[in-house]
Amino acid sequence: MSVLEKTLIKIYPQSTSARKAAIARIEQLTMPYWALGDLLDLAVDVAGMMDNPRPQINKKLIACMAADHGVTAEGVSKFPPEVTVQMAWNVINGGAGVNALASQSRTDIKVYDFGIAGDMGDAEKSGKIINKKIGNGTDNMAAGPAMSRTMAQKSVENGIAVAEENSDYDIFGTGELGIGNTTASAAIATVLTGRPAAKLCGRGTGLDDDQLEHKIRVVERAIALNKPKKKDALDVLSKVGGFEIGGIAGLIIGAASQRKPVVIDGFISTAGAMIAAVIEPFTKDYMIFSHRSVEPGHAEMQKFLGCRKPLLDLKFHLGEGTGAAMAMNLVEGGLAILNQMATFEEAAVSGADK
Amino acid sequence: MSVLEKTLIKIYPQSTSARKAAIARIEQLTMPYWALGDLLDLAVDVAGMMDNPRPQINKKLIACMAADHGVTAEGVSKFPPEVTVQMAWNVINGGAGVNALASQSRTDIKVYDFGIAGDMGDAEKSGKIINKKIGNGTDNMAAGPAMSRTMAQKSVENGIAVAEENSDYDIFGTGELGIGNTTASAAIATVLTGRPAAKLCGRGTGLDDDQLEHKIRVVERAIALNKPKKKDALDVLSKVGGFEIGGIAGLIIGAASQRKPVVIDGFISTAGAMIAAVIEPFTKDYMIFSHRSVEPGHAEMQKFLGCRKPLLDLKFHLGEGTGAAMAMNLVEGGLAILNQMATFEEAAVSGADK
Repeated sequence: MSVLEKTLIKIYPQSTSARKAAIARIEQLTMPYWALGDLLDLAVDVAGMMDNPRPQINKKLIACMAADHGVTAEGVSKFPPEVTVQMAWNVINGGAGVNALASQSRTDIKVYDFGIAGDMGDAEKSGKIINKKIGNGTDNMAAGPAMSRTMAQKSVENGIAVAEENSDYDIFGTGELGIGNTTASAAIATVLTGRPAAKLCGRGTGLDDDQLEHKIRVVERAIALNKPKKKDALDVLSKVGGFEIGGIAGLIIGAASQRKPVVIDGFISTAGAMIAAVIEPFTKDYMIFSHRSVEPGHAEMQKFLGCRKPLLDLKFHLGEGTGAAMAMNLVEGGLAILNQMATFEEAAVSGADK
Repeated sequence: MSVLEKTLIKIYPQSTSARKAAIARIEQLTMPYWALGDLLDLAVDVAGMMDNPRPQINKKLIACMAADHGVTAEGVSKFPPEVTVQMAWNVINGGAGVNALASQSRTDIKVYDFGIAGDMGDAEKSGKIINKKIGNGTDNMAAGPAMSRTMAQKSVENGIAVAEENSDYDIFGTGELGIGNTTASAAIATVLTGRPAAKLCGRGTGLDDDQLEHKIRVVERAIALNKPKKKDALDVLSKVGGFEIGGIAGLIIGAASQRKPVVIDGFISTAGAMIAAVIEPFTKDYMIFSHRSVEPGHAEMQKFLGCRKPLLDLKFHLGEGTGAAMAMNLVEGGLAILNQMATFEEAAVSGADK
């Protein structure tokens, strides 16, 4: 049995009994009925995920996965590909957006090389970046498959390894960087939702109208050429995906197999979540949707995953794990309600008139 | 000059130069243009408020102001009035929703008695509640004015005193509790927005359809009887307001006079913010809108204050300062961006193609 298969058989749905026990407790807490709305729904979800009506979260990790994309040869990004190396160093050095926001929410960050094309110098030897490399960037999906099926499975399994090597963490957040990765993500979303590419492609790092139109054509061309099979997630990932997107899918699968919540970041992370959900639909039971991105396709992707309303809607379009970093506070808030609030009886507060 | 007048003359608009400097820095940070959306707008606002392009927030306080409302005699709440005392003790003892959420965001809470009708026992002597009392609950606004104009001004001035006594804090959050206070808040909002009472009244702690209809009639009756003058905030506050609502207005005025941001909580806090904004429109420059409540009138009230989209929208309807407690994380996140992220130059990251 492959690592992937061995992991998938450990995935169960959320615990109904833990959910019920959490709901029963919340209904006794000193507030009007469900007066903290979505935060209470979130607390019940985490109880169900962790199979514990009063779960604790202490250690939080954002796994920031970096890789390059051959499709950049088509001119789909405003930034040159060497920015992947530069931004990986920026995260390592603590200067990126995700560093600032993760420090606010007291979340650790680890940086993983899933397939950076450029030279990261001594970053790996010094332990600043962790090697999960599948290759030196994907191939250009507009000219052929982005990677082999074997590589696609390996990228997912390397993501599972990230979850396993960090089993001392209670919750994971997804993160990524890689020039060209909104194009691969839009292609995955186009295939899996069956909606037109024009509905799933966005401006990424800031394309103008003509550049956006070109990006849509590139995605359409890659799909027409490679004919990914939408029921076969590894086929989709291999033909129009990315190494870090496979890694994100693997992290989610690994988290689910450990009964741990995984906070999904933005557009690219949600493409990874879609791959995970097609591989094993019960992984959706472990996903927390941090925010809605400015990328217009993000809402369609979240709908595919059953998320009508993410926690935050702050016009983010950065990725890296920035939305996940901010949403960690809300997860902690939900659990603080469950674990710290007094019941009407404990606090001797009179209930509502019937 | 009264304390109120002395404080009002210290209120200035946001600093344009600090805003511009913050914007200039953000545009140099290692991300695509404005890629953290609303969090960047928030950071620029805080820079403008604090007159500092890279402001620091260390100490955070939620001032939870409690008072009773004579209008409860009309049967406008599902909970009996003694719950004000019980819930004040619950906050003192750390068992309320605001305690759980403020502990998550590392925000201090202080509880203030602005006019609790019941007996708080030894809470004041032991320093667990701070005396800012105006009276033992307001009078029933459906039978006459809620309080005298002198009391209204004193409630605002006591709120200013809360800001002054806590000048070691960098940011304030509003909070309140008091059975009946959504009715007073809806009355204030009805007068100030000029919209029908039915648009501003909500279910509070959980009214059914008939009870909601009754609440609307009570608000209409109180306004018809007392004829509050909408241009005169102290007149509105005295006729249909509450002691803690005046306190919240005062806290906001005091915060603005110290050039400090004040995070506005839910429905009742927003009524206080409307009073502050009518007294001195520049107080709006210092308001951060934490969330949108389930109370249907909240959106109208926020629109009156110039807020189109608050930071969070999580179906809260608890008050106490719960929304402010969660939003503190986003304020910190915005400042972390401004203070911790590297510029393109510092990180040697290539910029976008022009």
